[in-house]
Amino acid sequence: MLRMPEKVRMIGKERKKKAIEELASFGREVVKDILEVRPPKFKVPSRSTSNIIYDAANRYFVLGGKYSVRSAASVKQIKKFAQTMCVAGFCKGLITENKFATLREMYYTAEGWEAGPFRDQNESDMIVEDLEAAFGLKREDLGLMPEEDGAAVYGELVVDEEGVVIDATKAGRGGYTIPPTIDDVEFVKCKAKRVIAVETMGMYHRLIQEEAWKKFDALIVGLKGQAARATRRFLKRASDELKLPTYIFADGDPFGFHIGMVIISGSAKLAYINHELAVPDAKYIGVTASDIVNYKLPTDKLRELDFARLRQLQKDPRYNTEFWQSEIKKMIEIGRKAEQQAFAKYGLAYVVNEYLPAKIKELEGKEFLGVK
Amino acid sequence: MLRMPEKVRMIGKERKKKAIEELASFGREVVKDILEVRPPKFKVPSRSTSNIIYDAANRYFVLGGKYSVRSAASVKQIKKFAQTMCVAGFCKGLITENKFATLREMYYTAEGWEAGPFRDQNESDMIVEDLEAAFGLKREDLGLMPEEDGAAVYGELVVDEEGVVIDATKAGRGGYTIPPTIDDVEFVKCKAKRVIAVETMGMYHRLIQEEAWKKFDALIVGLKGQAARATRRFLKRASDELKLPTYIFADGDPFGFHIGMVIISGSAKLAYINHELAVPDAKYIGVTASDIVNYKLPTDKLRELDFARLRQLQKDPRYNTEFWQSEIKKMIEIGRKAEQQAFAKYGLAYVVNEYLPAKIKELEGKEFLGVK
Repeated sequence: MLRMPEKVRMIGKERKKKAIEELASFGREVVKDILEVRPPKFKVPSRSTSNIIYDAANRYFVLGGKYSVRSAASVKQIKKFAQTMCVAGFCKGLITENKFATLREMYYTAEGWEAGPFRDQNESDMIVEDLEAAFGLKREDLGLMPEEDGAAVYGELVVDEEGVVIDATKAGRGGYTIPPTIDDVEFVKCKAKRVIAVETMGMYHRLIQEEAWKKFDALIVGLKGQAARATRRFLKRASDELKLPTYIFADGDPFGFHIGMVIISGSAKLAYINHELAVPDAKYIGVTASDIVNYKLPTDKLRELDFARLRQLQKDPRYNTEFWQSEIKKMIEIGRKAEQQAFAKYGLAYVVNEYLPAKIKELEGKEFLGVK
Repeated sequence: MLRMPEKVRMIGKERKKKAIEELASFGREVVKDILEVRPPKFKVPSRSTSNIIYDAANRYFVLGGKYSVRSAASVKQIKKFAQTMCVAGFCKGLITENKFATLREMYYTAEGWEAGPFRDQNESDMIVEDLEAAFGLKREDLGLMPEEDGAAVYGELVVDEEGVVIDATKAGRGGYTIPPTIDDVEFVKCKAKRVIAVETMGMYHRLIQEEAWKKFDALIVGLKGQAARATRRFLKRASDELKLPTYIFADGDPFGFHIGMVIISGSAKLAYINHELAVPDAKYIGVTASDIVNYKLPTDKLRELDFARLRQLQKDPRYNTEFWQSEIKKMIEIGRKAEQQAFAKYGLAYVVNEYLPAKIKELEGKEFLGVK
């Protein structure tokens, strides 16, 4: 069994240290400006569409070089500047006390601030994004947690959550729930050799029942549709720290494709933090348009909405590969889509005994002889 | 620490035994009819609106006495009769092999049946509901599992999932995920004295962080909005088997009210199975319209949709109590709603240090002196 190097296990604490340093340095700059009788200011990278660039080398969206300066000398900006200071102070408090708050809780807490309250939560969320973009840190590193949990994971992984050790084969039939605060979790041991992430919980429970985690030495991740931030971070860490190849298995329709692509190449909206979330080496294994044809799957007709979405994907820089262009074209041609559970046509275990072994062999050249 | 009586621990197996008996008896009746050269038939309780009755004594919706007879002698009914036999056979197979399938998987599996395929999943789902209503058993007892997981639970509860023992304080920061197959889970030990079920995962993680589970000797359940079937079943079992009083804490708006009410009194749609799901003794503790006023919570204006919904609730038999009528009336009067996270106005820990102790004292007369 693999023991993680000490370096990897320090990740959570180091992140917090970096966050505190960034916040303190921001504060020191402001104090220095005030002492030297200069209006304090704050540089924020622009997140407008014109500053979101597809980075072909890294294979995800990033922010370009544009930024704006928020100055306490401007009557228009002074309130926002003060609110930014309050948010930074609130975050520093959270990290120091080892606590987390949701964006919603922060919005309500601001009712008591001199610079608050905010008109709506959108206003306070924007300031958090400013800090994330300025520091290159995720909101989770600043003590702010997403409302939703991450996905569930099942397989031979042992994690440590500040002293509580959890084996992801012994956390219940539902698996180990990836917490919103996944960067505080240390990977202690991992026997798995790959990750299979699946779109629906129906398929997740199928793979657990058929012991796919054992048969393929895999961590099975149940995405619950579009992957939450915590799930994406988990997949990123599994890829970077545990060096596990990642396979995504979603419904064979444009929305399934995009569930895969957001894991692989990130979203434009989160361009400022994709370096922490994108898993460019992850592979979409299916359901593809070719699978629909080759496996004679039960299908539904594409709706107008599906066609429109497929035509959008054709022009999206993230889909600019031979594989994607040919699969999108084929789906438009056949005019049909199929769900991942459609393999049940051949029996409940078919997906584990036939489909997945064929896919993994295609990618790794590895035969799973144990799987009949 | 409380040890569960052996009787309670047998629940999962007994349910399966009962399901197999019902299915076998159905099959025997059919065979007998055929041998005696009579067209086989199947009696199905009616689930139409006219047969859904609010049972004031039990405090939930139930089915009345109407039923229809499906006969193999009818040209119009023969296909549906055959499909019912196929579904019953499929379920028997699942139970015998100790497996579970989703409704979606069954729908696709039917592609290979002589009586299949179904026109759409609605058709196969209806047959499952027929069997549930006819046998008085849940689909989960027949080996069919909901797509979605249940909620998360955190607190001093130890469960046994066919040999895997899980402590709900050691399953991770996200807690123990209630699996779709919750009736297979045995409650082994429970030190908690009450259940606090909360609508949002934001509040769930707040209560875990502030150690509300320890302070109130409570199982904290994160509902994730409208409670899933597995969550409702878990709450029902905690109430019946563990005798824990159940408190529901949701957003102070008509949708939050109804999240509570569906747990308490079940839905009309599931009238045929409410005896397995409803928790009539559960109490909605807030956010109430009175809380909004008394705690001076940050609020939003009610929308037209909210007003319309509140007026519906006024006429709903489930809300025919003094408490509900007065709270609904008050909310219409003030024209405002508030989220449960709005207590953050007074600091993140306020909800645990002030609000919940006041509510529990009101209901139980118990002081939580440990909570400052």
